[in-house]
Order: sequence, then C-alpha cells, then structure tokens
Amino acid sequence: MVKRNKNIEKLKAGYLFPEIGRRKREFLAKNPGIKLISLGIGNTTEPLTPHVVDALVKYSKSLGTKEGYTGYDDDQKAQDFLLELKTRISKNWYNGLVGADEIVCSDGAKPDCGRLQVLFGNDVTIAVQDPAYPVYVDGSVIIGATGEYNEKKQGFDKLIYMPCTPENNFLPDLSKLPRTDLIYFCSPNNPTGAVATKEQLKELVDFALKNKSIIIFDAAYSAFINDKKLPKSIFEIKGARECSIEINSLSKPAGFTGVRFGWTVVPKELKFDDGSPVLSDWKRIMGTLFNGSSNIVQQGALAAFDKIGIKEMQGMIDYYMENARLIKQGLDAAGIKSYWTGNSPYIWAHFPGKDSWDVFSKILEEGHVVTTPGAGFGPAGQGFVRFSAFGHREDIVEAVERVKKLKF
Amino acid sequence: MVKRNKNIEKLKAGYLFPEIGRRKREFLAKNPGIKLISLGIGNTTEPLTPHVVDALVKYSKSLGTKEGYTGYDDDQKAQDFLLELKTRISKNWYNGLVGADEIVCSDGAKPDCGRLQVLFGNDVTIAVQDPAYPVYVDGSVIIGATGEYNEKKQGFDKLIYMPCTPENNFLPDLSKLPRTDLIYFCSPNNPTGAVATKEQLKELVDFALKNKSIIIFDAAYSAFINDKKLPKSIFEIKGARECSIEINSLSKPAGFTGVRFGWTVVPKELKFDDGSPVLSDWKRIMGTLFNGSSNIVQQGALAAFDKIGIKEMQGMIDYYMENARLIKQGLDAAGIKSYWTGNSPYIWAHFPGKDSWDVFSKILEEGHVVTTPGAGFGPAGQGFVRFSAFGHREDIVEAVERVKKLKF
Repeated sequence: MVKRNKNIEKLKAGYLFPEIGRRKREFLAKNPGIKLISLGIGNTTEPLTPHVVDALVKYSKSLGTKEGYTGYDDDQKAQDFLLELKTRISKNWYNGLVGADEIVCSDGAKPDCGRLQVLFGNDVTIAVQDPAYPVYVDGSVIIGATGEYNEKKQGFDKLIYMPCTPENNFLPDLSKLPRTDLIYFCSPNNPTGAVATKEQLKELVDFALKNKSIIIFDAAYSAFINDKKLPKSIFEIKGARECSIEINSLSKPAGFTGVRFGWTVVPKELKFDDGSPVLSDWKRIMGTLFNGSSNIVQQGALAAFDKIGIKEMQGMIDYYMENARLIKQGLDAAGIKSYWTGNSPYIWAHFPGKDSWDVFSKILEEGHVVTTPGAGFGPAGQGFVRFSAFGHREDIVEAVERVKKLKF
Repeated sequence: MVKRNKNIEKLKAGYLFPEIGRRKREFLAKNPGIKLISLGIGNTTEPLTPHVVDALVKYSKSLGTKEGYTGYDDDQKAQDFLLELKTRISKNWYNGLVGADEIVCSDGAKPDCGRLQVLFGNDVTIAVQDPAYPVYVDGSVIIGATGEYNEKKQGFDKLIYMPCTPENNFLPDLSKLPRTDLIYFCSPNNPTGAVATKEQLKELVDFALKNKSIIIFDAAYSAFINDKKLPKSIFEIKGARECSIEINSLSKPAGFTGVRFGWTVVPKELKFDDGSPVLSDWKRIMGTLFNGSSNIVQQGALAAFDKIGIKEMQGMIDYYMENARLIKQGLDAAGIKSYWTGNSPYIWAHFPGKDSWDVFSKILEEGHVVTTPGAGFGPAGQGFVRFSAFGHREDIVEAVERVKKLKF
C-alpha cells in the first residue's frame, strides 16, 4: 500500500487556526444562542474600500466581453497588467527600493511560504522565531526539513527555535544562535507585535551575511507600522539584497483575507552556493506549481496600490489600530500584563504560570471571546494569549468589557 | 552558502508553456507586425458567460458592504458558501457520485497537482502516461521523487513512463507495467485527446487495486466528452473509491484559466498503509499551505455549477469543439495525419520521423501559428504536435488555412 508521508505524520496537533475554529464551534454547539466575539484568527471584518470594489466590479464585467477577457497570465494583455501591477508595487509600496522584475505576485503570504519551502527542499537547516506564525514550522516539517517532534523540547528536532520573550524584548539573541541555512523572521511580529529597529535588522542582516544564510522576511504587517523611524522592509537595510527574501500580502492592510493577494521579493543578487540566482528557481517553481492569482484579484490589487487605494488602505489600518489601542487600554485597566508596540494589530497578553490553552478556554467559556493561545505559536508562547485587533468597533468595545470582568 | 535544491537542478529545460511563450516573443521581436495565432498553450479566449459575470459582479459589490463582506474561509458565512458550492459540485457535476465532504475546492488543477506531490512526499514510486501534462513529471522531480534526468531514456530515472502511441490507441499497456505507488492518468488526455472507455478504466482501477496503488485521475477535460457511453469521472468505475483521487477545474469548460478555480475529490475509503484516511492528510496540507481560492471566484463557480451556469458552459464547450472539428478537418484536407476523438479540445498531429520542435518552429515561422511540440510532453510525444481548439472562430479558420499551405 502507499506509505503515509512520514513528515506529515510528525505533525502532532492540527493546524492552529482550524483547531481554534473547531473549539469555537464545539463551544457553540454546546451553548447555542451565545454571541461569541472573535479576536482569534486575525480575520479582517471591514468592507473592501470603494476604489478596490470599483476595480473588481469593472474587471468582472469586462471578463464578459470579447475585448476585456483574459485567460492565463501568459497572454499579452495579462502580462501587461501584471507588469503594471509589479511596477506599482515597486514604486508605491517600496518607493523604488526593489525592482518590478524582482517581484512575483501570488495568492498570499501563506501559500508563498509553502512554495518557498518547496524551493529550498528538505536539505536545509532552519531557524524560526519562537513564538512564530505556525506555517514556518508546519511547512518545514511537511517538506521534511526537520526531525521528529520532541516532547521535552516542545518542538521539532533539527529546527532552531529563537526564543522571543519579555526578557529580550521579543527579539532573538543572535549571539546565542548557530548558523542555519534559512532564518524566518517576522516584523512587525505575529504574534508578539514586536518590531525590529533598523539597528536590530542590520544586526540580523550582518549575521546572515556572515553565516551565508538566507532570511525569509515576513513583512505581512509592515503597513501597520506608524513610527516612521522603523523599517517597513528588510530591503531598507544595507546588505539585505544579498541575503533576503521578503514576503508580503494585502490580506490585513486591505482586507484581502478572502480575496487573496500576496507577493514575494527575491533580489537579483541573491544566489545559491553554485552561483545561480535564487530568483530563477523561484520563477520556475511559481510557473510549474502555480498559475497566478485570479485576474480579477490582480485588478483589485492594482487599485489598492494606486494613490487612492493606498489612502483608503490607510483608513482601514487606522481603524484596526484604534481597535488595538482600545484592547490594550482595556487589558491595562483589567490589570492584565500585555505588550503592544503601537505598530502592529496584535496585543500579546501575559498570564505568567498559566497554560495558554487554559486561558484561551476561560476567555472563551466565561467571556465568550475567542483569542489565540500563545503556545500554539511555539513553546515560548506558553503563558501568553494573542488578541487580534481585527473586528467591528462595537465588537471590540464589547469584547474588552467582557474580558475586564474575568478574574484570572 | 545555501545549497541549491538538487531536485530543481535536475530539471533541464524550462517549464514547457513559458518556454513556448518565450519562443513566441522571440519570433515577434525579430518579426514585428506579424499576427501570430496561438493554438499553443490551450488558453481560453471566449468571454465568461453572463450568469457567471453577474455572480462575480454581485459578490465584488457585496464585499464593499458590512453585511456582505467575508474574510478567511474559516468564518461562518464563508463556510456556508463553501458548503453550498461543494454540495452543488456533488449534485450537479457528479450526480451524487461523490459526497460534498469529499470535495476540496482550490485555485486550479495545476496547483492541486503540486500540493498532492507535497502530500505524498518523495518516498513514492510514480508512473505517468507518456506523453503527459508536464506538471506530473516536473512536480515529481521538484519534490524529489525521481532520479536524475537520463539522456538515453529521454526522461527521469526512477519514473515509470507509460508510452501512449498510435499502436496502443494512446492507452498504456498495463500488462507491461511494474507496480508503482502513484499512477497519473488523464482522460480525456492532454495532449493526445484519447479517452478511456469504462472497460479500460475498469482495467486501470483493477490494476491499482491489485497493486495497492493510488490513481491520480486528471479529469480537467471531462466536460468535453460528447459520447454518453464514455466515463466522465473515475468514480463511475466500481472500486475506484478505494484507489483514486480525482482533480478537476473550471479553467477550460467555463473559461476560468485566468479566474482560477479547481477542486479535488478524495473519497473517504482511500487509505494509507497505516489505515489513516488520505482525506485527513489532504485537508491538513490544504489548510496549512493554502488559504482557499478567492471568495469572489467561489461565487463565480457557484453560478457556473447551477442549472443556468451549466447550460451556458455547454455553449462554450460546443463552441470550442466546433473549433476542434474545423482543425481536424483542415489537417485531414492538408494530408497531415492526426488524431481526434471528438471528445477533447486537442488534436494530436503526427509528423513521423520529424523532430517536434522543428515542426513547431516551421509552423511558427512559416505559418505564424503557435502549437505545442509533442516532445515537450515526454519522449513518446516526439514527432507529434498538439493543436489546441481554444481560440476565436475566425482565428481558428485563419490558422487552419495557414497550416494547409505549409509543405512538410
């Protein structure tokens, strides 16, 4: 019979977010009629902005005409749109920091992560921030780049966990780290919300250059950075072009969680040991295993990246950031220790000595609010719970009131 | 430095279709002003049907409202839509042959192929039809399930090629085949257009059951089957539920090549050697490395699968099939030996003793028509060229006239 893939077998628990959905549904089945408020998975709630909607509608209509129809990305009209889109990302998002020809468009940061794992294969060593967005770890396990799950370590063998804790301001201590081929790094961080300064990213880049490692820089929350001194892209750092890939997405800043659009930046200078450019292999992977994001979605993204689109996007970001401020204020008032940098949509609440799944359950069962247990993001997330700022204002206000009434 | 993935290094040539695009652009750069007609990549050309466009427009608009907005597939409204969509596929496409809960929706058959390769990993043996859709082979190479490229074999070591030639009516002779874990099988076939009868598929299923293999059945062209006696799904065959996965897509029948929608069917009875259901691991892969197809696209698919949608789709299929008939007629008139079953949008033309890239170049340079060289689909495709029936009627008519004038 066909053997079960031993790498998938290694994954003990289910993927974090469906698991939370499952617990949520289980609770609702037992307690019908209760109105839960979700500050869990980080699902956006506010409508798409008018400029983006106009573009989606216009293109959907045009697909019904002979002149406006496009098929695969290979055809000329589709190629022209894609070039315009990449040029706009290069100019309006990166201010020319990266070239249009170094950008590859996709259906999101998560699937790009999975494809990057296919790109690098299983014969690489990997470091991840701990806690971290689960796909870095789960995807590395699936592709076979890790060892078995180690109960004692509460993590996978062969994988290097870089603890991010209050003691190190949630930024890994590089001096304690061995060399790895890949370093996953997310700033603004999901889940801790920590943002690396230019100096800190410079240290990371220098570390990667010295070790000849490649940084996979997840910038999916970069648009939430308010503080103008903080870097929004790894490519603001000197030397990054020789050692970094950046992934990004419109999911959170433009409400594209369901619409699906993301992109990667792979600089031309980034090379493998044999001198071949990483970008060529990346394009080969993307061309072979993927067929591009939906053409309708590309048009929505095209609108999101123009002047009006970016202004509207900022409005949405401001809305969610005010939510974040209200959550932080509420947790402070309730005497719950929490971390929020003012530059990310996540608040990282600390319940020292408690199990984060227990805290999650208590908030769910007694407060009827869904959060995300920190332990789901890695061993160093134990004792923490993540509050997401994505929600309607009235729900956020209500959720904060509910949490304030709980006794921990 | 970071090692280049040795599996990607094995891929000698570029992915077939971008390579054709490259040659096309190269020719146009040298010969500006020439109007090429593409019967190459199989890119759909006819506008989306009105019912689908209405659904896309309506949902795009609704994403701009608080009530109509949806994010990740996890939220309840999105879950309800997805369930409706899968129920509709189960009822209206499969006539209840497979359950809604055995269907997993996606952005297309090609990316699903890539993810299935991740699901099964590199420790499996694989058989492919030869010639075949390039992703089966290229993706298997990338995931590390094959050996090196073997010049003598004109194929990859460890991979079993099942020759499909005029001598065997383009259906592999199973009696000559060793056991493999996976068998890729495409019917109606891309590129040969051959369609397996119920008896032939029964033989295949029995072969897989006896060998405890899993068939990955690519049914992306099933909607093009006219002959009611021919099976449109592997699940019409007794025993298939214990040994098959089916992949399918709206790309060709509904013109979704740019819009992106596909699905897989993994029956509950399909098990790994440890008794665990393949469907659970597949859902784990899809949940971890993918975020669902665009919610707008899902609504377009929902419309495509209702009564009106299916009727409109049939109109589009009839249009392309009339194109196919015209191409076949033209090739016959030109005295070019070709194969067309009347149940697929591809015509497989034979130029015995000639190199298919040479024939491709001749038709491109002298006829200004783009085709696909058979050798690009595998060693047994040598000497053949694929004509695709996807095109505007007037272009098809013109292309046929041009080809008729060539001397081979």
